Amino acid sequence: MLQLENVYQAAFALKNIIRNTELIHAPKINPDVNLYIKPENLQVTGSFKVRGAAYKISRLTDEEKAKGVIACSAGNHAQGVALAAARNNINAVICLPDGAPISKVEATRAYGAQIELVNGVYDDAYNYALKLKDERGLTFIHPFDDDAVIAGQGTIALEILNENPDVEAIVVPIGGGGLISGVAYAVKALRPDVKVYGVQAAGAPSMVKSVGEGKILTLDSVKTIADGIAVKQPGSTTFEICSKYVDDIVTVTDDETATAILTLMEKQKLVAEGAGAVSVAAVMFDKVPVKGKNTVCIVSGGNIDVTILSRVIDRGLLKSGRLCKLSIELTDKPGQLRDLSATIASYGANVVAVNYEHAGKGTDVNSCIISLELETKNKAHIKEVRDGLTKSGFKLL
Amino acid sequence: MLQLENVYQAAFALKNIIRNTELIHAPKINPDVNLYIKPENLQVTGSFKVRGAAYKISRLTDEEKAKGVIACSAGNHAQGVALAAARNNINAVICLPDGAPISKVEATRAYGAQIELVNGVYDDAYNYALKLKDERGLTFIHPFDDDAVIAGQGTIALEILNENPDVEAIVVPIGGGGLISGVAYAVKALRPDVKVYGVQAAGAPSMVKSVGEGKILTLDSVKTIADGIAVKQPGSTTFEICSKYVDDIVTVTDDETATAILTLMEKQKLVAEGAGAVSVAAVMFDKVPVKGKNTVCIVSGGNIDVTILSRVIDRGLLKSGRLCKLSIELTDKPGQLRDLSATIASYGANVVAVNYEHAGKGTDVNSCIISLELETKNKAHIKEVRDGLTKSGFKLL
Repeated sequence: MLQLENVYQAAFALKNIIRNTELIHAPKINPDVNLYIKPENLQVTGSFKVRGAAYKISRLTDEEKAKGVIACSAGNHAQGVALAAARNNINAVICLPDGAPISKVEATRAYGAQIELVNGVYDDAYNYALKLKDERGLTFIHPFDDDAVIAGQGTIALEILNENPDVEAIVVPIGGGGLISGVAYAVKALRPDVKVYGVQAAGAPSMVKSVGEGKILTLDSVKTIADGIAVKQPGSTTFEICSKYVDDIVTVTDDETATAILTLMEKQKLVAEGAGAVSVAAVMFDKVPVKGKNTVCIVSGGNIDVTILSRVIDRGLLKSGRLCKLSIELTDKPGQLRDLSATIASYGANVVAVNYEHAGKGTDVNSCIISLELETKNKAHIKEVRDGLTKSGFKLL
Repeated sequence: MLQLENVYQAAFALKNIIRNTELIHAPKINPDVNLYIKPENLQVTGSFKVRGAAYKISRLTDEEKAKGVIACSAGNHAQGVALAAARNNINAVICLPDGAPISKVEATRAYGAQIELVNGVYDDAYNYALKLKDERGLTFIHPFDDDAVIAGQGTIALEILNENPDVEAIVVPIGGGGLISGVAYAVKALRPDVKVYGVQAAGAPSMVKSVGEGKILTLDSVKTIADGIAVKQPGSTTFEICSKYVDDIVTVTDDETATAILTLMEKQKLVAEGAGAVSVAAVMFDKVPVKGKNTVCIVSGGNIDVTILSRVIDRGLLKSGRLCKLSIELTDKPGQLRDLSATIASYGANVVAVNYEHAGKGTDVNSCIISLELETKNKAHIKEVRDGLTKSGFKLL
């Protein structure tokens, strides 16, 4: 049973393993909110997960430590367990499905963990991990549904309350619910006046639905760029704690999350993964009632693949109107491209990509389609460019 | 004349304006170096520049304050001066060339500065600023060649020595030389055993050349992605201090800087601008003699345009072998694309972009050129894919 003293004990156990990530004031994210970011993306291993894993491991008996631990994860939990085990000089086995991204596998291996690539998907890796656990007498470290893991994540709340005693609301990403359970439990024990809001991806709303219905539900499928919180079913402990202590849970769309990732890069110079940015998305898009309040958003992690980041940047630029894609039907005769370029330039837009295609279905036989990617200032600017092109006689598709 | 007491005075004057950016341990950047990052990209305004500007402003007389200040910059200095002036409730005029990026203009305006867009290039804006200064009795805030500005930047050294007393070397980006002058002056006064190394972009080596020749040189042109340090001529004060106190100055290429930016994003979750990343590039590519040493890299700023960042990511991925572009000449007959795709897939590379072009100059009349962008693991993997394609009979261009 979780108790406040466990959270304090965890803070002590973690001292030489984690960083106390200092709050960063971020008043530009939403001008109506006095916002601070708790940058757990700057935590060792790039996410908060090491906290829970390290405290769990510190609580093992000497015999359990001698045998080692096992976990199943392709993401932040894997690296957290691997580092925490290495720092305690105990063996860790991490099971991953064999399709896991090579970068995450290598990062986990680099912390000294033994990697078991299992043929199949996550569930196959999970079942194999349970089998190895029994065979070798290893201790299984659950990613969220464990009192010690939850207490470890709760140390974030102590740091926030200590550094920002004026805090009025804390906004927390939810996947399985380990992070918010630790935070909400500690906050409500120490400062019941502080609101705790949870945020899930609209494509993976397992906790919000379960709490809404008053029972644990399992989603058929999850789909979101916030892969770190794409969890089909909450834990039983985390479901109970969330139901009791969390003030409200909201959801954000992938487009909102992408915009938050981009904003964190531009305004705060921080790289956040989707799961880490949903809290900021909720504040940006007014999903939580924190207007005028001293608010802390936990940015839970930053382990995002840079190729995905590159796509997220494009998506964010499109959503905020700073990139725009136009398709225009041109008559296939000399001078058309020149006229088009001149018109676009006259509105101050910058062409960054061009694709020229003849013989489109549904177009005139002597016409072609030109697809353009433009750098623009905002949505009003896009409208100006589009209206200008139409006025000049171009046919926008 | 710069004195150590000015640096201490500056630290006091800055207390309510800046953040003390905490060092971040970064052992993965170069396994041979015990590296810490001083993340001034997380500083308010996204760069260290606010330090010098704020201290300079704090030193003005009441009469000077009543009249206000003026600066000429399209970058970090503009935002630093604007914020420092706003916090001291004095007026700031910032002159910029009218082609300055809209995002930087708006960021500066948002701090409350009066913006003067001047027709022409930087020099025109600079001359106009001098004219306004005389007309209105404003105080001109130089971006680097000023004792108070240098003392303000030197506060970074106090923070480093205070937080990491075991430091053995500090690596610092150099543009005009304000930052490194403040740092080197303070470090050598307090801890002469600590080495101070400067880093310039290979395309803008004004200080390294000037110090090498023993006199101030002016470059004809500068060209680098590190636009924040693309300075043609060092200041006279900064030249003198660098000549006297800096242990060595090295240069890094744009490709090295791009790789450092990418590495900072991936390993440290930090967004750095080119000028901010050159110090890290120097350590990554063994340009400075810090093997085995407790070393601090100052990452001086993070104000990089995201569209440029997107290009830098691609460049970094290319350089590290995780993205590869291939052009292949195909005979224009059915099945060729299928065979090519199958061969590439068999080597575990992932196709992310395709361009198909008929009738290339210098190719057979019945052939076409296909250009591919592939996600790969590293350079060895690229070689494997290329060799495999050649072995399967494809003609790589």
